[in-house]
Amino acid sequence: MHLNSLHDLFVHEIRDLYSAEQQLVSALPKMARAATSSDLQTAFTKHLEQTRTHVSRLENILDTMGMPRNGHECEAMKGLIKEGESVINEMGDTAVKDAALIAAAQRVEHYEIAGYGTARAFADKLGLSEAADMLQDTLDEEGEADKKLTKLAEGNVFSTGINQRAIGD
Amino acid sequence: MHLNSLHDLFVHEIRDLYSAEQQLVSALPKMARAATSSDLQTAFTKHLEQTRTHVSRLENILDTMGMPRNGHECEAMKGLIKEGESVINEMGDTAVKDAALIAAAQRVEHYEIAGYGTARAFADKLGLSEAADMLQDTLDEEGEADKKLTKLAEGNVFSTGINQRAIGD
Repeated sequence: MHLNSLHDLFVHEIRDLYSAEQQLVSALPKMARAATSSDLQTAFTKHLEQTRTHVSRLENILDTMGMPRNGHECEAMKGLIKEGESVINEMGDTAVKDAALIAAAQRVEHYEIAGYGTARAFADKLGLSEAADMLQDTLDEEGEADKKLTKLAEGNVFSTGINQRAIGD
Repeated sequence: MHLNSLHDLFVHEIRDLYSAEQQLVSALPKMARAATSSDLQTAFTKHLEQTRTHVSRLENILDTMGMPRNGHECEAMKGLIKEGESVINEMGDTAVKDAALIAAAQRVEHYEIAGYGTARAFADKLGLSEAADMLQDTLDEEGEADKKLTKLAEGNVFSTGINQRAIGD
């Protein structure tokens, strides 16, 4: 990492997100398999498709700048996924485990929301409008994915939330 | 970790946050020392004081439930702090480094926002209203800390933002 210019920092942020999203592409199928609720399985599977698009957008940004895609590992996502895996490997009540998977996934979403928010702000500042638009699209999708998980946890008048099922009612 | 009930999961979440906040108490003074902007130094120092209060609230919740405080390490915060430290140890332009410190700190804030949001929802569900209130207070403070960092990055009519300084204007 070199921090001589905002451009250096922007490239670092994009490569960090690229590593994070790639780790997530490997983790999401395991999370989907570990989920019991079919709605939660669907949410993870749908987010996997979106995550592949997020990876493509980051590749597009790095390629346009002539920057290498790989060579950096996102340490934070490594830790986040380690936490998710400890839930996957845990025995217990299926609804409680689903609630735990949602908790782990929402931490991942928020990590990405912070990362994309920063990267989008840097792209704006650097006048990289196409990159800024792509980062905003991903940011919006991460926000929607987070809200979807909250809805699954809390439920609504048509469907009992996973937190309620976890309490055994 | 046992996941037989929502109470088990709630205790796990609180202990995870407790480990995260304790790691942050160690990291924030280093981040304050690494910052060049006096406003950013002040923001980190002020957040350190708040973080100590957050630790006390979590101790209060664990003690009330008769649960051990220690014995779990938050892997995600370990990764987040590792990322922050790589910025601290980096040479470069001071404003760019400040922007990088903000980027790392906002990832930490968002991690905590996700964690406290989940824990507060579980406390509500379990009818633990005092715990829920304390978690909401911390959640509000983490949200404010995140907004403060965005303001420092973006600036306003009275003060040039750190991102603008990082671009060299």
